[in-house]
Amino acid sequence: MTRIAETLTGVRATTPLVHCMTNTVVPEITANVLLAVGAAPAMIDLPEEAEIFAGIASALLINVGNGSAEQHAGMRLAAPAAAAAGKPWVLDPVAVGGLPVRTQLARDLLVHRPAAIRANASEVLGLAGTSAGGRGVDATDEVDAAVDTARQLCADTGAVVAISGPTDVVVSDGRVTRVTGGHELMPLVIGTGCALGATVAACLAVAESEADRHDAVVAAHALFGAAGLVAARGATAPATFRTLWLDALHTLTPAEVEELVTVEED
Amino acid sequence: MTRIAETLTGVRATTPLVHCMTNTVVPEITANVLLAVGAAPAMIDLPEEAEIFAGIASALLINVGNGSAEQHAGMRLAAPAAAAAGKPWVLDPVAVGGLPVRTQLARDLLVHRPAAIRANASEVLGLAGTSAGGRGVDATDEVDAAVDTARQLCADTGAVVAISGPTDVVVSDGRVTRVTGGHELMPLVIGTGCALGATVAACLAVAESEADRHDAVVAAHALFGAAGLVAARGATAPATFRTLWLDALHTLTPAEVEELVTVEED
Amino acid sequence: MTRIAETLTGVRATTPLVHCMTNTVVPEITANVLLAVGAAPAMIDLPEEAEIFAGIASALLINVGNGSAEQHAGMRLAAPAAAAAGKPWVLDPVAVGGLPVRTQLARDLLVHRPAAIRANASEVLGLAGTSAGGRGVDATDEVDAAVDTARQLCADTGAVVAISGPTDVVVSDGRVTRVTGGHELMPLVIGTGCALGATVAACLAVAESEADRHDAVVAAHALFGAAGLVAARGATAPATFRTLWLDALHTLTPAEVEELVTVEED
Repeated sequence: MTRIAETLTGVRATTPLVHCMTNTVVPEITANVLLAVGAAPAMIDLPEEAEIFAGIASALLINVGNGSAEQHAGMRLAAPAAAAAGKPWVLDPVAVGGLPVRTQLARDLLVHRPAAIRANASEVLGLAGTSAGGRGVDATDEVDAAVDTARQLCADTGAVVAISGPTDVVVSDGRVTRVTGGHELMPLVIGTGCALGATVAACLAVAESEADRHDAVVAAHALFGAAGLVAARGATAPATFRTLWLDALHTLTPAEVEELVTVEED
Repeated sequence: MTRIAETLTGVRATTPLVHCMTNTVVPEITANVLLAVGAAPAMIDLPEEAEIFAGIASALLINVGNGSAEQHAGMRLAAPAAAAAGKPWVLDPVAVGGLPVRTQLARDLLVHRPAAIRANASEVLGLAGTSAGGRGVDATDEVDAAVDTARQLCADTGAVVAISGPTDVVVSDGRVTRVTGGHELMPLVIGTGCALGATVAACLAVAESEADRHDAVVAAHALFGAAGLVAARGATAPATFRTLWLDALHTLTPAEVEELVTVEED
Repeated sequence: MTRIAETLTGVRATTPLVHCMTNTVVPEITANVLLAVGAAPAMIDLPEEAEIFAGIASALLINVGNGSAEQHAGMRLAAPAAAAAGKPWVLDPVAVGGLPVRTQLARDLLVHRPAAIRANASEVLGLAGTSAGGRGVDATDEVDAAVDTARQLCADTGAVVAISGPTDVVVSDGRVTRVTGGHELMPLVIGTGCALGATVAACLAVAESEADRHDAVVAAHALFGAAGLVAARGATAPATFRTLWLDALHTLTPAEVEELVTVEED
């Protein structure tokens, strides 16, 4: 079995519990996606509870899109708690670069060494301080323009960095992997990117070592891309696409995922 | 007409206004479920407004899943306001037992005598202090393991206690009713349990006396189970299941609900 | 091309960025609707970020349904920031009239001259202080009962006032336009009204002058009504209706919208 298939099989076999601290727009789709892929979601934001739960859960997602000051305080406790417990955590730096509070927050959290960072190209550049970020949550930069910055982020933080776009690029120390799948309707469904961050966390929870993390991140992207290709066969508009895509996340076998998407190493 | 049919007919005839104070993940599905079953939702969390509205609405739901300190303050005002106005209120003790803030909150609220408590087995045990609760929002205990504790909660608080599982068990003074329906895809749709708590509140709003409350709680569970059976005929994956299930909540007649589910008294 | 078609074409051609400060129930459907109609959503509530972003975005929506004190503080900064930057902003006074905090908030914000107010009849009356508002978020007044009050609100604030109902009525200085479309299942889908407020903001973003604002507001209502008519052809229950309606928002051409709905000037 390939590493991608091993990861997806592992998630379904072990139902990792993913602690999600995410923005106000996407909790429901994030939870439904985690359930569909075989993981278990738990959204816990109160600082006192988040600090405890980050050490109990299998993995943690911190998505700095629209959140409250109270949630931000919780994130500042949960990231070090996850790190101290040896649990992988994922940073999704939504709209970082252009907005001051979340930009400072995301940069401050890097010291706790996320296992992965998932973002669009503008957010990767914004997190590193290389550009002012995108237009709200939209990328205004091309994926390839962020690869060198992603490489530097890996070197500085130890994280696998995944850049989302028509072709996703996963970057870590010495490796660059490109995953091509999905469909143009996918960015018209809110939360597909945010839920990908949560699924990356689920996949990292079943990685057996730090060396397996790169492939775990690739596996999450492969599953999302494959489901997008399947959904596009049956839908020409975003709401029907959303339903079919969520169904495909649940029903696709690991072997089907690998047949559907194109995964290339640079 | 049976008590179940009377309750479901009563909800559709009177459109009870259900004040929902719920977690960040499920407001949208909760509102859509209440509209589908014939009730009207209103989510109001600000303490000053929640205290007023709890006395105006037909019933109140307090779900202690992921919420803010501000919302918790509102819940501490709304529960006594509902009680003072003679309006039934429902407690959904999400993940109580393992997480300290919500566990204290839920236990403190019991003094205001909820009309019903709806939870999974681990949460019932966690609320009573009998166990440490489940794994996040997942039950790790079997329904039957919580029946004796549910009986004690009834005795202590006056609430009807409903334990959700493959077969739901509704417990009150001297009665134990088992409702079998639903489908294994239902727990893969986030919010079906939380929305059941809201529907219990809607059904309690049309109960004519405290003696009718047990049957009102059973009616909500019967409707949910019946809709799950109908949805499973047309779906093999969770997103399509969710759509068909919500549609069935709206279209099933009370007579069809009673034909579909199995309701047994111990 | 008519003004309605020009507006809808303009939204799709320019992808206006709509800053949404909305209630806890509807962020996901609001974002999906904006994406479906060709706009781009960004939910940003933190006061420090909201004040900045309101001057950057193409338009701003302020929906005073269930929100936190922190979000309210952000709204009090964002409305004047949008006004100062010459960006149109829309007020959706959810349940205003009956609930004190949001009623004061909505009235205070009027001094910043919203480009449009979108509400049901009870909320229009509640905002103006003419009645106590509806029952939670439900209108208890007929649309026509609010037209005179809407006219006065226009005179006082400069806003186009849109009253939602079986026939929507759009009121501005010297004009009253009635838009008939939609379907009785539409109010059973939570957030269709709130998402209409966001779509009004998107349409206002492409209005070339204040004189064009009335028609921009009509265009948003026409699109929603047309999509409701299309969805009703394929659905008899609310969840399927919701999917088809969202799809239709994306696929209907401006010419089809105009053929489907009835638009009449008084």
